[in-house]
Amino acid sequence: MRIALDAMGGDHAPKAIVEGCLEAAQKWPDMELVLLGHEQSIRSLLGQPLPDNLTMHPVEEWIEADEEPVRAVRRKKGSSIVVGCRMVREQKADAFISAGNTGALMAAGTMVTGRLSGIDRPALAPMFPTLDGKGVLVLDVGANPEAKPVHLEQYALMGALYAENVLGFDKPRVGLLNIGTEEGKGTALTKGAFELIKKLPIHFVGNVESRDILQGVCDVLVCDGFTGNVLLKNTEGVAKGIFARLKEELSRNAFTKLAAAILKPGLKRFVKDMDYKEHGGAPLLGLKGPVVKAHGSSDTLAVLNAVRQARRFVERDVISAISKESQRLERG
Amino acid sequence: MRIALDAMGGDHAPKAIVEGCLEAAQKWPDMELVLLGHEQSIRSLLGQPLPDNLTMHPVEEWIEADEEPVRAVRRKKGSSIVVGCRMVREQKADAFISAGNTGALMAAGTMVTGRLSGIDRPALAPMFPTLDGKGVLVLDVGANPEAKPVHLEQYALMGALYAENVLGFDKPRVGLLNIGTEEGKGTALTKGAFELIKKLPIHFVGNVESRDILQGVCDVLVCDGFTGNVLLKNTEGVAKGIFARLKEELSRNAFTKLAAAILKPGLKRFVKDMDYKEHGGAPLLGLKGPVVKAHGSSDTLAVLNAVRQARRFVERDVISAISKESQRLERG
Repeated sequence: MRIALDAMGGDHAPKAIVEGCLEAAQKWPDMELVLLGHEQSIRSLLGQPLPDNLTMHPVEEWIEADEEPVRAVRRKKGSSIVVGCRMVREQKADAFISAGNTGALMAAGTMVTGRLSGIDRPALAPMFPTLDGKGVLVLDVGANPEAKPVHLEQYALMGALYAENVLGFDKPRVGLLNIGTEEGKGTALTKGAFELIKKLPIHFVGNVESRDILQGVCDVLVCDGFTGNVLLKNTEGVAKGIFARLKEELSRNAFTKLAAAILKPGLKRFVKDMDYKEHGGAPLLGLKGPVVKAHGSSDTLAVLNAVRQARRFVERDVISAISKESQRLERG
Repeated sequence: MRIALDAMGGDHAPKAIVEGCLEAAQKWPDMELVLLGHEQSIRSLLGQPLPDNLTMHPVEEWIEADEEPVRAVRRKKGSSIVVGCRMVREQKADAFISAGNTGALMAAGTMVTGRLSGIDRPALAPMFPTLDGKGVLVLDVGANPEAKPVHLEQYALMGALYAENVLGFDKPRVGLLNIGTEEGKGTALTKGAFELIKKLPIHFVGNVESRDILQGVCDVLVCDGFTGNVLLKNTEGVAKGIFARLKEELSRNAFTKLAAAILKPGLKRFVKDMDYKEHGGAPLLGLKGPVVKAHGSSDTLAVLNAVRQARRFVERDVISAISKESQRLERG
């Protein structure tokens, strides 16, 4: 198995990516890793000699975090993101991981790697934290802001297959994000999607309200990309805000600092549970090959986790499963 | 000024409503209060003699929390919610407050009190907490799950007028909820709404991402009812989940309990800031008269706050301002 990594994307690139890649090469000697990056920038980080199962694929350009995605993908055909997506398309790599510009990765995934037949829209599917630590796969969180019922149906199917095969959920409970739990609630989109999803051969638990997500009421949550993106950023914003304010309370005076010292291990564990970097990267589902978005702030450990996930994504051959099921759906 | 209250709706009804009403009658002797409720149920709670400025308006039926809103409003014409909305329509009350079935209040507001000319859809507009304690008015959070750009334009206008006149924001900063801050981001809905809102005579600060809401980047946040409802319940769910887990950490052993005792005042203050019950009720904007939804879990203090808010809603004549501006918009 050969996995390609974008050394040039992410807040801590190239250092964290290179280090994570070196660790992954050591951890899984049966696997080949290909680092796409600017030769001079990563050569010194890599050291010498390179592990046998790690090669460098030099690129001369890369897409910055603030570039307009579609334009950047069209113009920078030699960039790490475009090259990585092309390697997956041409089966020169079994999977590609990038912590770079999310929009550009989604655009290159669609335009370069290509959509699976039977899937109209790819979906970006990160894990959200839940209080029981298991997490919930949410899709779509923004690969496509607008959706029709049939797209949500495809998301439900892809999410269930990925959660079962890669995340290890047994018969994952799939929920539809809605503004009430009763059937018939919501918009034309959610009503239409409910009718389609309930006929799928998956464990559909019906409508789920956003207040119950953290409680872990489902393992896979389906929604349109606009709502999913709002949800993702809101969860992040509220958690960050509360932790920041908590930190203030803990450093108020000598007594609260004492309290902080007592609580430190428990709070650290908790903050870690709430941190979805810990849960690996977000797959871009519905493409012809595995493409994984690692979190922008990925550190070495997060890169290692993303490689572990991409590895399982390939091993379990989720792409074939999605392709088979979605075509059956289409014929259905 | 005469304000009507629904004694029969809310988790702590009728007790909390009656007590809040009694306190309000005492606090504002210049105002008349009318309690709509089942005579036997509230008579003993009211005591004797009634304050001069409080009267009881007996009703024989009420809408339960789990009833289907539209059907309940059609069938129960003598229910406290329908009677209250009718009193506003017929100018027998200057405002109506209910902590009962939200859907039923929205339905009765639209069907019985009636929409203002120039407003296509009423919007439910609660306050969300912000870290600086000022809060942000969000609309719509579910009066109408689906929206067109012109509806968001009307929400922006109504929200700005309400925030300025009732909530005391000086030139309130109005933001449009979106999945990126740059102009041109999002769906057909947000793109269309952006074009309309930027031409309004309000202080429009552009697109706002959900991760920044708690930081207080705007005073009024505009979105469709589906997204707003998801946002409201997610903020509630994440905050509740984190506080529950924090409580667990604090009661883990004798040391953490000591830490909890030290931190108690600070945490209490924080939880209070995050509790939107403290911010009074949510107006249903776009109707011919002031209708306010108090939080379902309203206690005596929350009822008092809702009365204070309804009072200012009437005093500042926000309905006339909305009517004038929306008609100007229509003629535009």
